[in-house]
Amino acid sequence: MNKFIENLNWRYATKEFDTSKKVSRGDLDEIIEVFRLSASGFWLQPWKLFVIEDEDLKKQIMGAAWNQKQVWENSYLLVFAKNLNVDKNLVDKYLDRSAELNWISRYDLSGYEQTLLWFVDSTPREYLQIFSENQVYLSLWNVLAFLADKKIDSCPVWGFDNEKVDAILSLRDKWFASVILLPIGYRSENDTNLKRKKVRFEKEDIFEIM
Amino acid sequence: MNKFIENLNWRYATKEFDTSKKVSRGDLDEIIEVFRLSASGFWLQPWKLFVIEDEDLKKQIMGAAWNQKQVWENSYLLVFAKNLNVDKNLVDKYLDRSAELNWISRYDLSGYEQTLLWFVDSTPREYLQIFSENQVYLSLWNVLAFLADKKIDSCPVWGFDNEKVDAILSLRDKWFASVILLPIGYRSENDTNLKRKKVRFEKEDIFEIM
Repeated sequence: MNKFIENLNWRYATKEFDTSKKVSRGDLDEIIEVFRLSASGFWLQPWKLFVIEDEDLKKQIMGAAWNQKQVWENSYLLVFAKNLNVDKNLVDKYLDRSAELNWISRYDLSGYEQTLLWFVDSTPREYLQIFSENQVYLSLWNVLAFLADKKIDSCPVWGFDNEKVDAILSLRDKWFASVILLPIGYRSENDTNLKRKKVRFEKEDIFEIM
Repeated sequence: MNKFIENLNWRYATKEFDTSKKVSRGDLDEIIEVFRLSASGFWLQPWKLFVIEDEDLKKQIMGAAWNQKQVWENSYLLVFAKNLNVDKNLVDKYLDRSAELNWISRYDLSGYEQTLLWFVDSTPREYLQIFSENQVYLSLWNVLAFLADKKIDSCPVWGFDNEKVDAILSLRDKWFASVILLPIGYRSENDTNLKRKKVRFEKEDIFEIM
């Protein structure tokens, strides 16, 4: 079987980590790099990854996430956050970076600048936040696929009190808001989810050729 | 360098495919399997992948996507669609499948059933569609990462007239709506995007450790 597909079958939502094993700092650096390389709509990268190491912060966040143990007991708790300010400043930041990396002037990018400004100016603020949220979900799977490749376990958690988590980490002050929590570590052999079968609909239910 | 990270650096949004090369049917089958194995919130899999082979349909869709050539000239055009009916029927379908694969009775799943029914009944319909859309973005990157691993090129397209595409493919009649178009194929050496540098913010801009 193709290794990528093998990895997908290997991974699952891990509810209990083996606390005697810790994801290395080197692996964490690679995870951050993978996140950084995610694609996004208009290339705007409307996101930030908060890596929580502090045990007290993790415990507080667990309290805002139905006390799910894996949110506290893990190697690192990743918090995927969306940018609340998809605006001219973000457009400028992207265009400056693009000009710099491609050795061109901002003037050469003025056509694309118009498109981006039209997008951020004409789209209702509420929809811009959905846009950011969608991009965060996109980046999440990039990290999940990489973790499966590294045989690092994880459990995406989206049922939590976002406002509380934002307050615990002071995210709103930085104009970010939490979307997904992703505790990472190595699966415990006692994890009850480990014995469950992966439940996916049959092929004919999820695709159609035209 | 890690191969996964190498793949991320290799991939880019391909605007022009080499029309003399075609993605094999075997690779397409694997792509569908990868999509099928994507994770989703509550495991509800609120999505469907429409694979467009018909040249005339592709051409019509191109007309609804700012006439972007790559939407027509490709090996296959994948249309990632969200399920518009996240409701009791979908919950039943998931629970039936779960009971079947785990060799247990629906009764054993009644606790989880309550949670799922609470979710679909108490969440406003508008938010349920955002939920579905988020999950589609999640599944999209699963496919993108796999394509990069197979050295198959692609170009996620989300700026298009969704209603027109839904009408061309009669998606609404099936209670689905298009979210993303993903033409796939092999890059042309003439593609202008090929010469552009990948533009990503610097590491310190996209992550923070706490």
